[in-house]
Amino acid sequence: MKIILIIIQSLDGFINKDQKDDLSWGSHEDKVFFRTLTKQLGTMIMGSNTYKKMPAFALGKRFSLVFTSQPEILRPAKAENIEFFKGTIKQALNYLEKKGIKNAALIGGGKINNQFLQAGLVDELYITVAPRIFAKGINGFGENKLDMKLKLLDTRQLTQDEILLHYQVLKE
Amino acid sequence: MKIILIIIQSLDGFINKDQKDDLSWGSHEDKVFFRTLTKQLGTMIMGSNTYKKMPAFALGKRFSLVFTSQPEILRPAKAENIEFFKGTIKQALNYLEKKGIKNAALIGGGKINNQFLQAGLVDELYITVAPRIFAKGINGFGENKLDMKLKLLDTRQLTQDEILLHYQVLKE
Repeated sequence: MKIILIIIQSLDGFINKDQKDDLSWGSHEDKVFFRTLTKQLGTMIMGSNTYKKMPAFALGKRFSLVFTSQPEILRPAKAENIEFFKGTIKQALNYLEKKGIKNAALIGGGKINNQFLQAGLVDELYITVAPRIFAKGINGFGENKLDMKLKLLDTRQLTQDEILLHYQVLKE
Repeated sequence: MKIILIIIQSLDGFINKDQKDDLSWGSHEDKVFFRTLTKQLGTMIMGSNTYKKMPAFALGKRFSLVFTSQPEILRPAKAENIEFFKGTIKQALNYLEKKGIKNAALIGGGKINNQFLQAGLVDELYITVAPRIFAKGINGFGENKLDMKLKLLDTRQLTQDEILLHYQVLKE
């Protein structure tokens, strides 16, 4: 299965200033990009904090798998086509592959992104770099040491100040 | 005085993996860019840890002001035209202005970058984004919360995988 990590971050690598951050510092153009690519991929994989922050309308028209140790707390789901998954990332991928899923967007948060990268399961990244510096916040790639090498595939300006970087993860 | 912050960071905002990091993950092209721009500006401002990491040849042909609470420990200087400064950043800028200095490169580390940004003293940033993810390390903008807005001035590919982002700091 091909897994594409998609996040918007500040220049210094934060996906949220704090737990209450509503991402209002991201552009409309980035939201359109996110919606278009995730619909095209058809499946989104996320952690429970990311799920809790997403408005219901941002979850429609694609399948979502939400990692959680407490599915009962998240039910009922905010939208159709959402499954809560209690288990390891390998178990989740086996499950998705059995469903015939070939492509998925990994959309955070940092902890789950870190686990997927650590396990060598991420193929590409789309990182929107917002024109902001926070110095403190929630890291988009978690907190466990990684040493990933990337290949820059292309770049695109989403707005006058916001740039989208598209990378392939190099596997050694 | 115009102050331009120049750093190379991983995609996730780290300027060093750890204290021993020798920046070998940065490109030759970035080093050439750094050398050219800092020589052109004529003055470099840095903290003592950054100074300690810099080879003597990287300090030649421009004036350097090194912040330190213990100048005696750093003497003798590694190269000519280096001054050790014990004092606040405002005192240092007064001192540089009295010397007739109009432009300076602020080259780290994170702590001093944070202080200059917090004080509204940085005009522009040149951030080289290396194609790496570390998840853990030393942040290029320090650890005290900031909320800076930037304007993207231009971008340049330094190598196939390394991109240089040039921003203006918006002052409110």
